[in-house]
Amino acid sequence: MKYPSPYAPDFSNRDPLTGVAEDFPTRWSPRSFVKTAIPAEDLEVIFDAARWAPSAYNEQPWNILTSTDETFETFLGLLVEANRKWAVNASLIGFMVARRNFTQSGKPNPTALYDCGSAWMSLTLQARKLGLYTHGMSGIRRDAIYEAFGIDRDDFEVVAGFTIGVLDLKENLGKPYVDWESPSPRKPLAEIWKQGVW
Amino acid sequence: MKYPSPYAPDFSNRDPLTGVAEDFPTRWSPRSFVKTAIPAEDLEVIFDAARWAPSAYNEQPWNILTSTDETFETFLGLLVEANRKWAVNASLIGFMVARRNFTQSGKPNPTALYDCGSAWMSLTLQARKLGLYTHGMSGIRRDAIYEAFGIDRDDFEVVAGFTIGVLDLKENLGKPYVDWESPSPRKPLAEIWKQGVW
Repeated sequence: MKYPSPYAPDFSNRDPLTGVAEDFPTRWSPRSFVKTAIPAEDLEVIFDAARWAPSAYNEQPWNILTSTDETFETFLGLLVEANRKWAVNASLIGFMVARRNFTQSGKPNPTALYDCGSAWMSLTLQARKLGLYTHGMSGIRRDAIYEAFGIDRDDFEVVAGFTIGVLDLKENLGKPYVDWESPSPRKPLAEIWKQGVW
Repeated sequence: MKYPSPYAPDFSNRDPLTGVAEDFPTRWSPRSFVKTAIPAEDLEVIFDAARWAPSAYNEQPWNILTSTDETFETFLGLLVEANRKWAVNASLIGFMVARRNFTQSGKPNPTALYDCGSAWMSLTLQARKLGLYTHGMSGIRRDAIYEAFGIDRDDFEVVAGFTIGVLDLKENLGKPYVDWESPSPRKPLAEIWKQGVW
Protein backbone atom coordinates (compact mmCIF):
# COMPACT_ATOMS: atom_id res chain seq x y z
CA MET A 1 0.00 0.00 0.00
CA LYS A 2 1.41 3.33 -1.05
CA TYR A 3 -0.54 5.25 1.60
CA PRO A 4 -0.31 3.49 4.97
CA SER A 5 -2.92 4.20 7.66
CA PRO A 6 -1.88 5.89 10.91
CA TYR A 7 -4.01 3.50 12.99
CA ALA A 8 -5.85 0.20 12.71
CA PRO A 9 -9.62 0.84 12.51
CA ASP A 10 -11.76 -1.25 14.85
CA PHE A 11 -13.86 -3.66 12.78
CA SER A 12 -15.19 -5.58 15.78
CA ASN A 13 -18.81 -4.61 15.05
CA ARG A 14 -18.56 -6.18 11.59
CA ASP A 15 -19.29 -9.87 11.17
CA PRO A 16 -18.41 -11.00 7.63
CA LEU A 17 -18.80 -14.70 6.87
CA THR A 18 -15.63 -16.72 6.67
CA GLY A 19 -14.48 -16.69 3.07
CA VAL A 20 -15.52 -13.13 2.21
CA ALA A 21 -12.53 -11.31 0.73
CA GLU A 22 -11.22 -8.71 3.16
CA ASP A 23 -11.57 -6.01 0.49
CA PHE A 24 -15.26 -5.74 1.31
CA PRO A 25 -15.62 -5.62 5.13
CA THR A 26 -12.41 -3.58 5.59
CA ARG A 27 -13.62 -0.85 3.22
CA TRP A 28 -15.25 1.95 5.17
CA SER A 29 -15.96 5.66 4.90
CA PRO A 30 -13.87 7.78 7.24
CA ARG A 31 -14.10 11.54 7.63
CA SER A 32 -10.60 12.06 9.03
CA PHE A 33 -8.26 12.92 6.21
CA VAL A 34 -4.84 14.51 6.28
CA LYS A 35 -4.37 16.92 3.39
CA THR A 36 -2.13 15.15 0.89
CA ALA A 37 -1.41 15.74 -2.79
CA ILE A 38 -2.11 12.45 -4.59
CA PRO A 39 0.00 12.08 -7.75
CA ALA A 40 -1.97 12.03 -11.01
CA GLU A 41 -0.72 8.50 -11.74
CA ASP A 42 -2.58 7.15 -8.69
CA LEU A 43 -5.80 8.99 -9.49
CA GLU A 44 -5.63 7.69 -13.05
CA VAL A 45 -5.45 4.12 -11.79
CA ILE A 46 -8.42 4.70 -9.47
CA PHE A 47 -10.67 6.15 -12.16
CA ASP A 48 -9.45 3.64 -14.71
CA ALA A 49 -10.75 0.87 -12.44
CA ALA A 50 -14.21 2.45 -12.69
CA ARG A 51 -14.15 2.07 -16.47
CA TRP A 52 -14.39 -1.72 -16.22
CA ALA A 53 -17.68 -1.85 -14.38
CA PRO A 54 -20.54 -3.59 -16.21
CA SER A 55 -23.43 -1.57 -17.60
CA ALA A 56 -26.62 -2.20 -19.57
CA TYR A 57 -25.75 -2.47 -23.28
CA ASN A 58 -22.23 -1.40 -22.29
CA GLU A 59 -23.56 2.18 -22.19
CA GLN A 60 -21.02 3.22 -19.51
CA PRO A 61 -23.32 5.99 -18.26
CA TRP A 62 -20.84 7.21 -15.65
CA ASN A 63 -19.25 10.65 -15.79
CA ILE A 64 -16.85 11.48 -13.01
CA LEU A 65 -16.22 15.16 -12.29
CA THR A 66 -13.38 15.80 -9.86
CA SER A 67 -11.23 18.49 -8.32
CA THR A 68 -7.81 18.46 -6.68
CA ASP A 69 -6.59 21.93 -7.58
CA GLU A 70 -7.62 25.58 -7.64
CA THR A 71 -11.24 24.50 -8.26
CA PHE A 72 -11.32 22.68 -4.91
CA GLU A 73 -12.98 25.57 -3.06
CA THR A 74 -15.77 25.63 -5.63
CA PHE A 75 -16.34 21.89 -5.29
CA LEU A 76 -16.27 22.17 -1.51
CA GLY A 77 -18.98 24.82 -1.67
CA LEU A 78 -21.22 22.39 -3.55
CA LEU A 79 -21.40 20.05 -0.55
CA VAL A 80 -23.86 20.56 2.29
CA GLU A 81 -22.26 22.36 5.20
CA ALA A 82 -21.95 19.26 7.40
CA ASN A 83 -19.80 17.59 4.74
CA ARG A 84 -17.76 20.68 3.98
CA LYS A 85 -16.32 20.72 7.47
CA TRP A 86 -14.45 17.43 7.15
CA ALA A 87 -14.17 17.15 3.35
CA VAL A 88 -11.91 20.20 3.36
CA ASN A 89 -9.03 17.87 4.29
CA ALA A 90 -9.68 15.34 1.54
CA SER A 91 -7.32 15.20 -1.41
CA LEU A 92 -10.09 15.10 -3.98
CA ILE A 93 -13.77 15.93 -4.21
CA GLY A 94 -15.77 14.26 -6.95
CA PHE A 95 -19.30 14.05 -8.28
CA MET A 96 -20.80 11.09 -10.09
CA VAL A 97 -23.03 12.18 -12.95
CA ALA A 98 -25.17 9.63 -14.79
CA ARG A 99 -26.26 9.92 -18.42
CA ARG A 100 -30.03 9.46 -18.15
CA ASN A 101 -30.71 8.16 -21.65
CA PHE A 102 -29.08 5.63 -23.92
CA THR A 103 -26.67 7.33 -26.32
CA GLN A 104 -27.85 5.22 -29.26
CA SER A 105 -31.63 5.23 -28.86
CA GLY A 106 -32.20 8.30 -26.68
CA LYS A 107 -34.55 6.19 -24.55
CA PRO A 108 -34.42 6.38 -20.72
CA ASN A 109 -31.83 4.06 -19.18
CA PRO A 110 -33.50 2.41 -16.16
CA THR A 111 -30.19 1.18 -14.75
CA ALA A 112 -28.11 4.34 -15.25
CA LEU A 113 -27.75 5.04 -11.51
CA TYR A 114 -27.29 1.36 -10.73
CA ASP A 115 -24.49 1.09 -13.27
CA CYS A 116 -22.87 4.25 -11.89
CA GLY A 117 -22.96 2.58 -8.48
CA SER A 118 -20.93 -0.29 -9.90
CA ALA A 119 -18.33 2.14 -11.22
CA TRP A 120 -18.25 3.93 -7.87
CA MET A 121 -17.64 0.66 -6.02
CA SER A 122 -14.86 -0.24 -8.43
CA LEU A 123 -13.03 3.03 -7.90
CA THR A 124 -13.51 2.76 -4.16
CA LEU A 125 -12.03 -0.73 -3.99
CA GLN A 126 -9.15 0.30 -6.24
CA ALA A 127 -8.46 3.29 -3.98
CA ARG A 128 -8.24 0.95 -0.99
CA LYS A 129 -5.72 -1.21 -2.82
CA LEU A 130 -3.46 1.86 -2.86
CA GLY A 131 -4.15 2.54 0.81
CA LEU A 132 -6.47 5.48 0.08
CA TYR A 133 -9.97 5.93 1.46
CA THR A 134 -13.18 7.18 -0.12
CA HIS A 135 -16.29 8.62 1.46
CA GLY A 136 -19.51 8.80 -0.54
CA MET A 137 -21.80 11.76 0.03
CA SER A 138 -25.48 12.11 -0.70
CA GLY A 139 -25.30 15.44 1.11
CA ILE A 140 -24.53 17.56 -1.94
CA ARG A 141 -26.20 20.69 -3.35
CA ARG A 142 -27.59 19.09 -6.47
CA ASP A 143 -29.25 22.19 -7.94
CA ALA A 144 -26.12 24.25 -7.40
CA ILE A 145 -24.01 21.56 -9.10
CA TYR A 146 -26.14 21.58 -12.26
CA GLU A 147 -25.79 25.36 -12.36
CA ALA A 148 -22.12 25.65 -11.47
CA PHE A 149 -21.02 23.39 -14.30
CA GLY A 150 -23.83 23.97 -16.81
CA ILE A 151 -24.87 20.32 -16.67
CA ASP A 152 -27.97 19.64 -18.77
CA ARG A 153 -30.65 18.15 -16.50
CA ASP A 154 -32.47 16.50 -19.39
CA ASP A 155 -29.42 14.46 -20.32
CA PHE A 156 -27.66 13.99 -16.99
CA GLU A 157 -28.42 13.27 -13.36
CA VAL A 158 -26.06 14.39 -10.60
CA VAL A 159 -26.15 11.32 -8.39
CA ALA A 160 -23.73 11.64 -5.51
CA GLY A 161 -20.48 13.13 -4.33
CA PHE A 162 -17.40 11.53 -2.87
CA THR A 163 -14.01 12.30 -1.44
CA ILE A 164 -10.69 10.48 -1.78
CA GLY A 165 -8.00 10.99 0.80
CA VAL A 166 -5.31 9.77 3.14
CA LEU A 167 -6.52 8.63 6.56
CA ASP A 168 -5.70 10.84 9.53
CA LEU A 169 -5.89 10.00 13.22
CA LYS A 170 -9.53 10.31 14.21
CA GLU A 171 -8.53 12.34 17.26
CA ASN A 172 -7.83 15.22 14.87
CA LEU A 173 -11.52 15.44 13.93
CA GLY A 174 -13.63 17.91 15.85
CA LYS A 175 -17.02 17.22 17.41
CA PRO A 176 -19.43 15.75 16.43
CA TYR A 177 -17.48 13.97 13.68
CA VAL A 178 -15.01 12.23 15.96
CA ASP A 179 -17.89 10.37 17.62
CA TRP A 180 -19.02 8.90 14.26
CA GLU A 181 -15.53 7.89 13.14
CA SER A 182 -15.70 4.12 13.05
CA PRO A 183 -16.78 1.42 10.58
CA SER A 184 -20.56 0.94 10.64
CA PRO A 185 -22.26 -2.44 11.09
CA ARG A 186 -24.68 -4.04 8.63
CA LYS A 187 -28.04 -5.82 8.60
CA PRO A 188 -27.85 -9.62 8.92
CA LEU A 189 -27.57 -11.47 5.60
CA ALA A 190 -30.99 -13.08 6.03
CA GLU A 191 -32.57 -9.63 6.02
CA ILE A 192 -31.32 -8.68 2.55
CA TRP A 193 -31.24 -12.06 0.79
CA LYS A 194 -34.56 -13.67 -0.08
CA GLN A 195 -34.56 -17.10 -1.69
CA GLY A 196 -37.44 -17.99 -3.98
CA VAL A 197 -40.06 -15.86 -2.24
CA TRP A 198 -40.23 -12.13 -1.47
CA MET B 1 -10.43 -20.58 -7.40
CA LYS B 2 -12.97 -23.23 -6.63
CA TYR B 3 -14.52 -23.08 -10.10
CA PRO B 4 -11.83 -23.05 -12.79
CA SER B 5 -12.63 -21.74 -16.27
CA PRO B 6 -12.51 -24.12 -19.26
CA TYR B 7 -10.71 -21.56 -21.41
CA ALA B 8 -8.82 -18.28 -21.12
CA PRO B 9 -11.00 -15.39 -22.33
CA ASP B 10 -9.38 -12.99 -24.78
CA PHE B 11 -8.94 -9.61 -23.10
CA SER B 12 -6.87 -8.11 -25.92
CA ASN B 13 -9.47 -5.41 -26.66
CA ARG B 14 -9.20 -4.15 -23.09
CA ASP B 15 -6.54 -1.58 -22.20
CA PRO B 16 -6.40 -1.07 -18.43
CA LEU B 17 -3.73 1.28 -17.13
CA THR B 18 -0.72 -0.34 -15.47
CA GLY B 19 -1.48 -0.61 -11.77
CA VAL B 20 -5.20 -1.34 -12.05
CA ALA B 21 -5.96 -4.49 -10.05
CA GLU B 22 -6.78 -7.38 -12.35
CA ASP B 23 -10.10 -7.91 -10.55
CA PHE B 24 -11.62 -5.10 -12.60
CA PRO B 25 -10.60 -5.61 -16.26
CA THR B 26 -10.80 -9.43 -16.02
CA ARG B 27 -14.39 -9.31 -14.77
CA TRP B 28 -16.79 -9.76 -17.66
CA SER B 29 -20.31 -10.97 -18.39
CA PRO B 30 -20.41 -14.25 -20.26
CA ARG B 31 -23.55 -16.03 -21.44
CA SER B 32 -22.03 -19.50 -21.67
CA PHE B 33 -22.72 -21.35 -18.45
CA VAL B 34 -22.58 -25.05 -17.68
CA LYS B 35 -25.37 -26.09 -15.34
CA THR B 36 -23.77 -26.57 -11.93
CA ALA B 37 -25.19 -26.74 -8.42
CA ILE B 38 -23.32 -24.14 -6.34
CA PRO B 39 -23.19 -25.11 -2.66
CA ALA B 40 -25.05 -22.78 -0.31
CA GLU B 41 -21.80 -21.91 1.49
CA ASP B 42 -20.43 -20.27 -1.68
CA LEU B 43 -23.62 -18.33 -2.38
CA GLU B 44 -23.65 -17.12 1.20
CA VAL B 45 -20.14 -15.72 0.81
CA ILE B 46 -21.11 -13.98 -2.44
CA PHE B 47 -24.19 -12.27 -1.00
CA ASP B 48 -22.41 -11.54 2.26
CA ALA B 49 -19.86 -9.50 0.27
CA ALA B 50 -22.75 -7.33 -0.97
CA ARG B 51 -23.66 -6.44 2.61
CA TRP B 52 -20.48 -4.39 3.07
CA ALA B 53 -21.16 -1.90 0.28
CA PRO B 54 -21.52 1.73 1.35
CA SER B 55 -24.92 3.44 1.26
CA ALA B 56 -26.41 6.80 2.14
CA TYR B 57 -27.05 6.96 5.90
CA ASN B 58 -26.13 3.26 5.96
CA GLU B 59 -29.66 2.56 4.71
CA GLN B 60 -28.56 -0.63 2.89
CA PRO B 61 -31.47 -0.33 0.42
CA TRP B 62 -30.56 -3.55 -1.41
CA ASN B 63 -32.82 -6.59 -1.41
CA ILE B 64 -31.57 -9.58 -3.34
CA LEU B 65 -34.17 -12.10 -4.52
CA THR B 66 -32.68 -15.30 -5.93
CA SER B 67 -33.51 -18.79 -7.17
CA THR B 68 -31.49 -21.96 -7.52
CA ASP B 69 -34.19 -24.55 -6.97
CA GLU B 70 -37.73 -25.50 -7.97
CA THR B 71 -38.55 -21.81 -8.40
CA PHE B 72 -35.94 -21.48 -11.16
CA GLU B 73 -38.45 -21.90 -14.00
CA THR B 74 -40.55 -19.07 -12.57
CA PHE B 75 -37.53 -16.77 -12.33
CA LEU B 76 -36.46 -17.74 -15.85
CA GLY B 77 -39.90 -16.77 -17.12
CA LEU B 78 -39.44 -13.27 -15.68
CA LEU B 79 -36.54 -12.53 -18.04
CA VAL B 80 -37.05 -11.29 -21.58
CA GLU B 81 -36.91 -14.12 -24.08
CA ALA B 82 -33.44 -13.26 -25.39
CA ASN B 83 -32.02 -13.69 -21.89
CA ARG B 84 -34.02 -16.83 -21.11
CA LYS B 85 -32.26 -18.75 -23.86
CA TRP B 86 -28.81 -18.61 -22.26
CA ALA B 87 -29.74 -17.94 -18.62
CA VAL B 88 -31.33 -21.40 -18.49
CA ASN B 89 -27.84 -22.82 -17.90
CA ALA B 90 -26.91 -20.45 -15.10
CA SER B 91 -26.79 -21.80 -11.56
CA LEU B 92 -28.73 -18.90 -10.10
CA ILE B 93 -31.07 -16.16 -11.30
CA GLY B 94 -31.44 -13.11 -9.11
CA PHE B 95 -33.19 -9.76 -9.03
CA MET B 96 -31.94 -6.64 -7.27
CA VAL B 97 -34.76 -4.75 -5.62
CA ALA B 98 -34.15 -1.30 -4.13
CA ARG B 99 -36.05 0.19 -1.21
CA ARG B 100 -37.18 3.53 -2.63
CA ASN B 101 -37.56 5.45 0.63
CA PHE B 102 -35.49 5.79 3.77
CA THR B 103 -36.70 3.40 6.44
CA GLN B 104 -36.41 6.04 9.18
CA SER B 105 -37.90 9.14 7.55
CA GLY B 106 -39.98 7.63 4.75
CA LYS B 107 -38.49 10.24 2.39
CA PRO B 108 -37.31 9.28 -1.11
CA ASN B 109 -33.75 7.98 -1.22
CA PRO B 110 -32.05 9.61 -4.22
CA THR B 111 -29.14 7.15 -4.18
CA ALA B 112 -31.09 3.92 -3.64
CA LEU B 113 -30.27 2.54 -7.09
CA TYR B 114 -26.71 3.85 -6.94
CA ASP B 115 -26.15 2.12 -3.61
CA CYS B 116 -27.66 -1.11 -4.96
CA GLY B 117 -25.16 -0.88 -7.81
CA SER B 118 -22.36 -0.85 -5.25
CA ALA B 119 -23.74 -3.99 -3.64
CA TRP B 120 -24.10 -5.64 -7.05
CA MET B 121 -20.46 -4.86 -7.90
CA SER B 122 -19.34 -6.28 -4.57
CA LEU B 123 -21.14 -9.56 -5.10
CA THR B 124 -19.86 -9.76 -8.65
CA LEU B 125 -16.24 -9.28 -7.62
CA GLN B 126 -16.64 -11.79 -4.78
CA ALA B 127 -18.11 -14.31 -7.22
CA ARG B 128 -15.04 -13.92 -9.44
CA LYS B 129 -12.76 -14.59 -6.49
CA LEU B 130 -14.40 -18.02 -6.30
CA GLY B 131 -14.05 -18.53 -10.06
CA LEU B 132 -17.74 -17.90 -10.73
CA TYR B 133 -19.15 -15.45 -13.27
CA THR B 134 -22.08 -13.07 -13.12
CA HIS B 135 -24.09 -11.49 -15.92
CA GLY B 136 -26.29 -8.48 -15.18
CA MET B 137 -29.54 -8.15 -17.06
CA SER B 138 -31.63 -5.07 -17.70
CA GLY B 139 -33.75 -7.28 -19.95
CA ILE B 140 -36.23 -8.37 -17.31
CA ARG B 141 -40.05 -8.28 -17.19
CA ARG B 142 -40.35 -5.67 -14.46
CA ASP B 143 -44.15 -5.54 -14.30
CA ALA B 144 -44.36 -9.33 -14.13
CA ILE B 145 -41.78 -9.42 -11.32
CA TYR B 146 -43.76 -7.01 -9.13
CA GLU B 147 -46.82 -9.18 -9.68
CA ALA B 148 -45.20 -12.59 -9.32
CA PHE B 149 -43.78 -11.82 -5.90
CA GLY B 150 -46.31 -9.25 -4.65
CA ILE B 151 -43.64 -6.56 -4.41
CA ASP B 152 -45.08 -3.20 -3.36
CA ARG B 153 -44.22 -0.65 -6.06
CA ASP B 154 -44.56 2.28 -3.69
CA ASP B 155 -41.86 0.94 -1.42
CA PHE B 156 -39.60 -0.96 -3.79
CA GLU B 157 -38.11 -0.68 -7.27
CA VAL B 158 -37.12 -3.78 -9.22
CA VAL B 159 -33.83 -2.59 -10.69
CA ALA B 160 -32.11 -5.37 -12.58
CA GLY B 161 -31.60 -9.09 -12.88
CA PHE B 162 -28.46 -11.17 -12.87
CA THR B 163 -27.18 -14.69 -13.20
CA ILE B 164 -24.36 -16.49 -11.43
CA GLY B 165 -22.79 -19.54 -12.99
CA VAL B 166 -19.83 -21.64 -14.01
CA LEU B 167 -18.23 -20.72 -17.33
CA ASP B 168 -18.76 -23.13 -20.24
CA LEU B 169 -16.89 -23.28 -23.54
CA LYS B 170 -18.35 -20.55 -25.73
CA GLU B 171 -18.62 -23.03 -28.60
CA ASN B 172 -21.55 -24.59 -26.73
CA LEU B 173 -23.61 -21.41 -27.14
CA GLY B 174 -25.93 -21.25 -30.11
CA LYS B 175 -26.29 -18.37 -32.56
CA PRO B 176 -26.41 -15.40 -32.15
CA TYR B 177 -24.98 -15.60 -28.62
CA VAL B 178 -21.73 -17.26 -29.55
CA ASP B 179 -20.82 -14.23 -31.68
CA TRP B 180 -21.18 -11.88 -28.68
CA GLU B 181 -19.23 -14.08 -26.27
CA SER B 182 -16.16 -12.01 -25.50
CA PRO B 183 -15.18 -9.27 -23.05
CA SER B 184 -16.35 -5.85 -24.27
CA PRO B 185 -14.09 -2.81 -24.59
CA ARG B 186 -14.60 0.52 -22.83
CA LYS B 187 -14.53 4.25 -23.57
CA PRO B 188 -11.15 5.94 -23.05
CA LEU B 189 -10.58 7.29 -19.53
CA ALA B 190 -10.54 10.90 -20.77
CA GLU B 191 -14.11 10.49 -21.96
CA ILE B 192 -15.52 9.64 -18.53
CA TRP B 193 -13.25 11.61 -16.20
CA LYS B 194 -13.59 15.39 -16.21
CA GLN B 195 -11.24 17.44 -14.05
CA GLY B 196 -12.48 20.77 -12.73
CA VAL B 197 -14.83 21.54 -15.61
CA TRP B 198 -17.77 19.67 -17.11
